[in-house]
Amino acid sequence: MKLLHRYDLFSWSEFDEERNLDFNSWLWQRSDGNVLIDPLPMSGHDRRHLESLGGAKFIVVTNSDHCRGAEKIARDTGAKLCGPNQERAAFPLACDRWLQNSEQVVPGLTVIELAGSKTPGELALVLEGSTLITGDLIRCHQAGELCLLPDAKLSNKNSAIESLKALAALPGIDVVLPGDGWPIFRYGAEALGRLVGTLSNIS
Amino acid sequence: MKLLHRYDLFSWSEFDEERNLDFNSWLWQRSDGNVLIDPLPMSGHDRRHLESLGGAKFIVVTNSDHCRGAEKIARDTGAKLCGPNQERAAFPLACDRWLQNSEQVVPGLTVIELAGSKTPGELALVLEGSTLITGDLIRCHQAGELCLLPDAKLSNKNSAIESLKALAALPGIDVVLPGDGWPIFRYGAEALGRLVGTLSNIS
Repeated sequence: MKLLHRYDLFSWSEFDEERNLDFNSWLWQRSDGNVLIDPLPMSGHDRRHLESLGGAKFIVVTNSDHCRGAEKIARDTGAKLCGPNQERAAFPLACDRWLQNSEQVVPGLTVIELAGSKTPGELALVLEGSTLITGDLIRCHQAGELCLLPDAKLSNKNSAIESLKALAALPGIDVVLPGDGWPIFRYGAEALGRLVGTLSNIS
Repeated sequence: MKLLHRYDLFSWSEFDEERNLDFNSWLWQRSDGNVLIDPLPMSGHDRRHLESLGGAKFIVVTNSDHCRGAEKIARDTGAKLCGPNQERAAFPLACDRWLQNSEQVVPGLTVIELAGSKTPGELALVLEGSTLITGDLIRCHQAGELCLLPDAKLSNKNSAIESLKALAALPGIDVVLPGDGWPIFRYGAEALGRLVGTLSNIS
């Protein structure tokens, strides 16, 4: 796995040939048990790396299109699966927890429910106030610039923009880690603000 | 290949299990012929993508440890190989051109020879004044923060720091694309300056 901007955060990725971008997964190493977010299937190397870092206690899946390798990794590691509460009725995985707005997955990892995306209540996460982790709604196709899911995939564009604006208004976001595309490791709030500006100019 | 910060720049990468970071290669698409830098072996998908973007006219190899897939890709595409002039006597590839400080590979792509790295005259490149492309000397292991090659690999640390300072003093560098590790897509000059500061504090 690759080290991110903090010594307790790691990622692994898979290049998607259809979209020409990386799908990304995240690991937060904690003394009280590690958290994986939207985990892709792992190579043997990354699996051993995960074990050396303490395994996994929780797996958060931000939306039903990001199940990826979560079920197998949960089985292998004993981690508890956590999914978006608004998808509870038809989620493809049997989750141990259903996450709602404002709750903490573990101390320091806060849930935000987003509206208007392709699935109801897609989750974003804020890690210790400064690192925003997004699933599908907020992405990064052109390096350095965030974008929204294409209009055709949004269930409600106005609601999606309102959710984006709420993220852009969070104080202290330095880093944005999107499930799909390039991470932004500094001045994340600026990037969110630029995206808000672009969309406001269009609509 | 992945789109970078400009619509004419692309990359492809390979995760290195030994170092837990990505090795990166770069493509600049130009109407007068594309340039590849430190190209890794390409997947069939990326090879087709390269063809769709116009193939390759020049391949720059920044140092003898970054030959990677250059020879095969040159053979397949007909691209001219360009290597560092200071390694000319013993370079592992038969280059068509040997690059020296201040010359342009093609208009807009300027060569900088670095001192003190593990090979003599390792090349860095500046693309249209704002994108710095580095081979091995300047790297990024912790996302968002540049670093130098480990001391044990440097032929002369003071010379390496002088070369770094010269890069940090370039006006207008927004982006730093290292051959090894995370790219920095905004405020690249700041990141170079922070690295200079760190090394100055230590030495």
